Amino acid sequence: MTTIVYIASSLDGYIADEDGSLDWLHNIPNPGASDFGFSDFMSEIDALVMGRVTFETVCGFEGAWPYSKPVFVLSNTLDRVPAELEDKAEVIKGSLPKVLETLHARKYTQLYIDGGKTVQSFLSEDLIDEMIITRVPILLGGGAPLFGSLAAPLEFEHVNSEILAGALVQSHYRRKL
Amino acid sequence: MTTIVYIASSLDGYIADEDGSLDWLHNIPNPGASDFGFSDFMSEIDALVMGRVTFETVCGFEGAWPYSKPVFVLSNTLDRVPAELEDKAEVIKGSLPKVLETLHARKYTQLYIDGGKTVQSFLSEDLIDEMIITRVPILLGGGAPLFGSLAAPLEFEHVNSEILAGALVQSHYRRKL
Repeated sequence: MTTIVYIASSLDGYIADEDGSLDWLHNIPNPGASDFGFSDFMSEIDALVMGRVTFETVCGFEGAWPYSKPVFVLSNTLDRVPAELEDKAEVIKGSLPKVLETLHARKYTQLYIDGGKTVQSFLSEDLIDEMIITRVPILLGGGAPLFGSLAAPLEFEHVNSEILAGALVQSHYRRKL
Repeated sequence: MTTIVYIASSLDGYIADEDGSLDWLHNIPNPGASDFGFSDFMSEIDALVMGRVTFETVCGFEGAWPYSKPVFVLSNTLDRVPAELEDKAEVIKGSLPKVLETLHARKYTQLYIDGGKTVQSFLSEDLIDEMIITRVPILLGGGAPLFGSLAAPLEFEHVNSEILAGALVQSHYRRKL
């Protein structure tokens, strides 16, 4: 079973600005309309795990539902997803090890872990195997941080890096065992 | 005149751990004893500008004085550097624009801006032209942060990136005008 983070961050480690906006991310010149490897990445995972806040943000996006794989929403307050998303998403509860056990039992083995707080929760229990971090060349100076505090450092190996649209540095890391 | 940051950071944006230690940085396997481009970089600059804390940290390093270029120490509390360093370093006072003006008048045009708080001060006044950031594949979970808060975002252009020792991602950025 593999848990993978795939996320864009400013150089100073924010995934959303002070207003929760992602405009700084969408303003990158992208003449080839590249998806920056996102669909390739999505084809390699079995399911997504995200927090309620990220889920509700995605629900607010205009246009079609963006994910082709099942979404599991970690939430203690939500009991079910909106009816129109019942074939796409479901609420999952319990400790993170228990969540992973449940998903594994349901034959999901490649999990995309999404959303700042969810990523931080998984990392704080050393439950992230890989991270694909795309650095956007901007300093936001504040906002929602990608990383949080840890009880002890976590070492990773560098797998590879790629420059996207002449601006983004996308680096793939794997937890050092 | 160009102000350049050249610094190593953990993936979560710390330049020293909770104890102020850099051991996590020195523990990277480096069989070729590479200096990761540091001497090439030093050959391109005229002088260093650092804060008192960084200066005192460097003074505490074992072995020879590490810099081949003049060091200017920003300090409101220090009046002079230790006598044995008088030919290598000097204290400089005043606002950052004034400091840059003074150094420019003294024919220093390529300035290496070093140290977490100094870098943050220059960035908060939008006085950094280039940044060479070397990302070490570790999450420290706390420590001395490289970046601080800003009144407004600062956009950069990606110049190039290089993988060092199969582990470090060194990216060069230039302020977008």
